[in-house]
Amino acid sequence: MDVWQWSAAEAGARMAQGALTSEAYVRACLERIAQREGDVRAWAHLDADAALAQARARDREPRRSVLHGIPVGLKDVIRTRDLPTAFNSPVYEGGLSAAGGNAASPLAFPPAEDAHCVAVLRALGAVILGKTQTLEFACGGRFPPTRNPWDEARTPGGSSSGSGAAVADGMVPLALGTQTGGSTIRPAAFCGVFGMKPTWGRLPFDGIKSFAAHLDTVGLYGRSVDDLLLLWQAWGLSEPDEAERPVGPARALRLGVCRTPNWDQAEPAAQQAFEGALSRLSAAGVTLLPCELGPEHAAINTWQDEIMQDGGRSAFRPEMLAAPALLHEEFQRKLGNHLGLTPARLRAALDAVARCRMDFERALDGLDGALTLSAPGVAPVGLHTQGLAVFNRLWTALQVPCVSLPVLWSPEGLPLGLQLVGPRYEDGRLLEAAARVATLFDPPRHPWN
Amino acid sequence: MDVWQWSAAEAGARMAQGALTSEAYVRACLERIAQREGDVRAWAHLDADAALAQARARDREPRRSVLHGIPVGLKDVIRTRDLPTAFNSPVYEGGLSAAGGNAASPLAFPPAEDAHCVAVLRALGAVILGKTQTLEFACGGRFPPTRNPWDEARTPGGSSSGSGAAVADGMVPLALGTQTGGSTIRPAAFCGVFGMKPTWGRLPFDGIKSFAAHLDTVGLYGRSVDDLLLLWQAWGLSEPDEAERPVGPARALRLGVCRTPNWDQAEPAAQQAFEGALSRLSAAGVTLLPCELGPEHAAINTWQDEIMQDGGRSAFRPEMLAAPALLHEEFQRKLGNHLGLTPARLRAALDAVARCRMDFERALDGLDGALTLSAPGVAPVGLHTQGLAVFNRLWTALQVPCVSLPVLWSPEGLPLGLQLVGPRYEDGRLLEAAARVATLFDPPRHPWN
Repeated sequence: MDVWQWSAAEAGARMAQGALTSEAYVRACLERIAQREGDVRAWAHLDADAALAQARARDREPRRSVLHGIPVGLKDVIRTRDLPTAFNSPVYEGGLSAAGGNAASPLAFPPAEDAHCVAVLRALGAVILGKTQTLEFACGGRFPPTRNPWDEARTPGGSSSGSGAAVADGMVPLALGTQTGGSTIRPAAFCGVFGMKPTWGRLPFDGIKSFAAHLDTVGLYGRSVDDLLLLWQAWGLSEPDEAERPVGPARALRLGVCRTPNWDQAEPAAQQAFEGALSRLSAAGVTLLPCELGPEHAAINTWQDEIMQDGGRSAFRPEMLAAPALLHEEFQRKLGNHLGLTPARLRAALDAVARCRMDFERALDGLDGALTLSAPGVAPVGLHTQGLAVFNRLWTALQVPCVSLPVLWSPEGLPLGLQLVGPRYEDGRLLEAAARVATLFDPPRHPWN
Repeated sequence: MDVWQWSAAEAGARMAQGALTSEAYVRACLERIAQREGDVRAWAHLDADAALAQARARDREPRRSVLHGIPVGLKDVIRTRDLPTAFNSPVYEGGLSAAGGNAASPLAFPPAEDAHCVAVLRALGAVILGKTQTLEFACGGRFPPTRNPWDEARTPGGSSSGSGAAVADGMVPLALGTQTGGSTIRPAAFCGVFGMKPTWGRLPFDGIKSFAAHLDTVGLYGRSVDDLLLLWQAWGLSEPDEAERPVGPARALRLGVCRTPNWDQAEPAAQQAFEGALSRLSAAGVTLLPCELGPEHAAINTWQDEIMQDGGRSAFRPEMLAAPALLHEEFQRKLGNHLGLTPARLRAALDAVARCRMDFERALDGLDGALTLSAPGVAPVGLHTQGLAVFNRLWTALQVPCVSLPVLWSPEGLPLGLQLVGPRYEDGRLLEAAARVATLFDPPRHPWN
């Protein structure tokens, strides 16, 4: 096994024993990137020397945490003090060199401060490896050039395209993304990696380009549930009642089965893979119970879209005022309230979602989570699509935590995600349940095997 | 009338006619600050030369908007590209000089990027005058040194202490603050200025230190409703149905009267002033209708506190990890989940608030807003208190827009705020209604009269 193939947990254990340096691990990742980046195009900004300097500095220090010396990729909507942040937008290009801004791009700024999530990871000793490609502003407009490591003709999914692809391709063991619609879970499914959208608001969004306040969420990527746990635990959010209600062994799990009102949009192969997974879980002793959403849930994706589009009315106003010629017309449409949303319609959407949230969590009572698909099928062909988010937008609107497990496969061997959804604030328990579920499937596959 | 006494609207009209330069207006504000700052202590960072340079640059340009050349103060939790941002926290002191951070304060950063709201104002030609004093992180810990311009022995209220006091004292016509509990409306009431907490999420919080995601809101200050409108309109958020439901003349207003479940905490003088205001409005032809909150609303302030304290579990983690010795113990307590909040309790609080929100907006149906007090009384004596937020926290939790009008006065001549509350997303209508209400009272008083 090559060094770059090790998970964060495996590499961290070796570092703790003195059997691996951060420099060696980071160098292995950089070499993998050098070899593969021409094909995968996952990175927006990379400074190999700076990353190695961080790694050497960590190697000279006492270990600060389990993340000490571990490289992390960051979606390029997340601000960093030592790398540019450009959101894949021409408005912010040139920020590294133009300290005072420049005439064509007056909002471009030099790197200066870490987003909240970056400050947490850096303080714990993680090495900020680079910035990963994103759909413009994680919202629309310009597509990233990133290709799916499983099939370069296919999208890795978006908008956290580079984070999903880089982790899948062995370029970096961990990465952060964001999700406002389906931007974390969808790339996790299409790229065959583990992904997590935590409970909305649990990880501060401070320092990340906002799109829609009710929905914007930091996302996590890894190549195992253990690695997602390493990232999640960085925020120190264990709940006081977790010890009282431990997640039991896999065979004692009680999981809901939630095909959602959009099941007819799932491809037959995805539906078959899902049903196969249920059989496997059932055979392993897992208790599966129906967890269907009532008819009032059918419109959640529409309400989610209204809430999301409304965010666009103010999110891109600085760019519209300062550099309209550089702002893709899609954002200009959003600024113009292209759906004609009224206050009454927005309140109705938000309140309907609030009622559905209460209903769904009541349905989860006594369960360890609900199973559904992460995406309606495999990654579509083409780099100017992201695929559909029909199995993501409802959960984003409900603000509940979701984990995507790369344990389902299409007949042609492309990844499909199995999604586990839990009640708000039980992110830690949900990850524990996801770890149990993962043990009942074959070990993860990788595009390099 | 001295130049510094002009409102933003008055000064802007003169600038549009060529009868006033931004430089002259900014210079007048700076002179007022030089004269009064020793007593009021409203400013955390001020760079007079840089402010004058901005003003001269605006004077050389075509006017960009009604805010062109108008100086604005910013609470020092709002990031700026040309001034330090220190949150009144020792963790971030020294950020101006220490480009790479310093050993004692590793998170201190140089100014580099404007918060979303600052970028909007700057693009519209506003002059960023300086940063105003705040309670540490707009949350707790270290109090600001700011004194109330009406009585220097009293607090200006917090946490947007400097913004409220600076506008009240004629140092700057407009300022931004934030509100997570009562941090915008309370200083507006105590300082006798107009203040607005918009609908949660309407103005992106991007670039402002977050405390509690469900509650954090940008706040606006001015010395008239017209000036609040100048600020509000900067975001371009007029609603498609506003023209269909125009706010009528003052005598045609229909307002609810909402004494809230905490009316017994209002001081007798405040209650009397409120009842006097109702008589005055009624005599002017305003239709006043009961808008009482049901018994289920009695606990909103408790739920608001749980939601707010929960935000503190993650908000201050970077500071706790990187510079624990510089982080006030109050934040360390918050990080430790000092209320012992469980996921179930948080969900219950959020869902109960969501139900109250639906109830309250149903009660507002057919009304132009609801009247209540902005604060339970006048500013308390002492600079190590902020006063109570019992008449603010419920509205912050409900995420509805609020405007405080300085039209009530205590027998000793100190300001008391009359608060007008509306349904979500009807911020523009609420400001129009507030403008009508203001015409039925005597013109604003100022501490310098």
